[in-house]
Amino acid sequence: MRAVCVIGLGLIGGSVLRAAATAGRPVWGATASEADAAEARAEGFDVVDAESALRRAAEADALVVVATPLTAVREVLRQIAEHAPDALLTDVVSVKDPVDAEVRSLLPSARYAGGHPMAGVSSSGWSAGSGELFAGAAWAVIVEENTTLEAWREAAQLALDCGAQVVPTSASAHDSAVARVSHLPHLFAAVLAAVGADGGPLSLSLAAGSFRDGTRVAGTAPELVRAMTEGNRVALLDAVDDALGRLGAARGSLASTGGLKSTVDFGHAARRAFEDLASSERASATVQLNATALERLRELGERGGRVLALSAETASVELPVT
Amino acid sequence: MRAVCVIGLGLIGGSVLRAAATAGRPVWGATASEADAAEARAEGFDVVDAESALRRAAEADALVVVATPLTAVREVLRQIAEHAPDALLTDVVSVKDPVDAEVRSLLPSARYAGGHPMAGVSSSGWSAGSGELFAGAAWAVIVEENTTLEAWREAAQLALDCGAQVVPTSASAHDSAVARVSHLPHLFAAVLAAVGADGGPLSLSLAAGSFRDGTRVAGTAPELVRAMTEGNRVALLDAVDDALGRLGAARGSLASTGGLKSTVDFGHAARRAFEDLASSERASATVQLNATALERLRELGERGGRVLALSAETASVELPVT
Repeated sequence: MRAVCVIGLGLIGGSVLRAAATAGRPVWGATASEADAAEARAEGFDVVDAESALRRAAEADALVVVATPLTAVREVLRQIAEHAPDALLTDVVSVKDPVDAEVRSLLPSARYAGGHPMAGVSSSGWSAGSGELFAGAAWAVIVEENTTLEAWREAAQLALDCGAQVVPTSASAHDSAVARVSHLPHLFAAVLAAVGADGGPLSLSLAAGSFRDGTRVAGTAPELVRAMTEGNRVALLDAVDDALGRLGAARGSLASTGGLKSTVDFGHAARRAFEDLASSERASATVQLNATALERLRELGERGGRVLALSAETASVELPVT
Repeated sequence: MRAVCVIGLGLIGGSVLRAAATAGRPVWGATASEADAAEARAEGFDVVDAESALRRAAEADALVVVATPLTAVREVLRQIAEHAPDALLTDVVSVKDPVDAEVRSLLPSARYAGGHPMAGVSSSGWSAGSGELFAGAAWAVIVEENTTLEAWREAAQLALDCGAQVVPTSASAHDSAVARVSHLPHLFAAVLAAVGADGGPLSLSLAAGSFRDGTRVAGTAPELVRAMTEGNRVALLDAVDDALGRLGAARGSLASTGGLKSTVDFGHAARRAFEDLASSERASATVQLNATALERLRELGERGGRVLALSAETASVELPVT
């Protein structure tokens, strides 16, 4: 089994290191955080400095996983360019177009396919992670024009080894989707919490389940929320404009006719569609891993398909029945 | 113990009937739903037609609880005016100013104090209810200028018997608060679900915890969401305008400077304030139930205080320490 070298051992990187080890793969890591390093070592993991980790990766032809915040990615890529310039490479950063651009610029000979596991908790750092964090979660693995089957397979196999289901997609489609289903929810949670608190202690005293759930992710560390939302600026602006349009239309309807039928009915149908996707019957498809495989996988991913297994010659995909 | 007559046996009314019975109070009810009536009778409850229920309430001087949707309240109040015009009366409808106005108009001699338990689930009907639904929940009991101590005590005692904590407040302060912490969250959930679904199957396939939590209450029956949001139109417009202002400011900041610091930091602090209110140290106060008691209780409620017990002469209140 191919070795895995994880750079950054916070919530996500630390969970990847644990899960890959549980899957039986040789693993080591590096982190700029002394606290994360000490905790990982105390649990028996092999944590060294970044230069040593990357040199070892180059020798072993290991898969290098960049698991730092977006703001630290450029510096890590520079280190990789120095010590392992043609590495097999993936990352777990929450936006993909900016990381893809940096890799093309700084690491033209790396065998790279970007990734993004859709899992997390409100807390951060090594101690918040777990080898089970990704069980059953979606994990986007990016298909761009220059992505090779070799690099994509390595990134996808890591996701499967971590217990996740692989969603093949392009970087820009990924960034647009997560603006809607991850970054906008964080912005909504912040705005909702603020409007509630503006109502004073009586409002917060009367707040119950709808407010608790709607504001939960506002409890996430602000620097993490800013890194992911600000890092996906263009796609998030589109999603915010859609939301402002819909909320403004609801406001207009409530003010003029007193009714909210359209907003409430559409939202209910959308939530149903989301629930149905998780629970509905699913069809199976098998994709031959030939020269057109990545394009075919990307199409299936954008229809809601997920890769559940890879063999030497095929990918097993499940699709929602629509 | 004073008997309780519940009109409307859906999620909330059915749960009140069960909880009051568990507390040892004589209970009976009526409902326009044949299905709810049959299920309640099958569990051994005394369910009759509304006229019989109200006549019995007049004879026994029972507390009458209006537990229908807002749209049915006027018709029920007309029946009460006919069969029990000077009843002890409360209600569990989600807006309070409109119900208060109807009661003043149709039932001038009723001994009325409005109420609103802040508990619920996404499903509806008798079968969705439970005698434990209100355990530890906030239950607003309304203090208006013409509210008598007798009527307020009866409504508050019912809430305490159901396991809830009583939040004394005025009708308009209640309606403003729930617009922010209950009705706006429902509108946000609907808009968020719609923006997510607009992203197609890929978006919903990548959606995880933040989207699931942020859209949960969009799964509530649309007619219930419309009844409560449209019924609180004026206060909800204020809350929506605050939300539009904050979301628009975030949009402007993201577009111009690329930053969301102010939005994210303020939302995080607001969520913290909400969590702290639930977990922080609390001070105790005792209010003598004299002529100025209701005004004093209302003040404490608007500072986040909750009544945890009533005796013949005092109310025991807990307040957040700030």
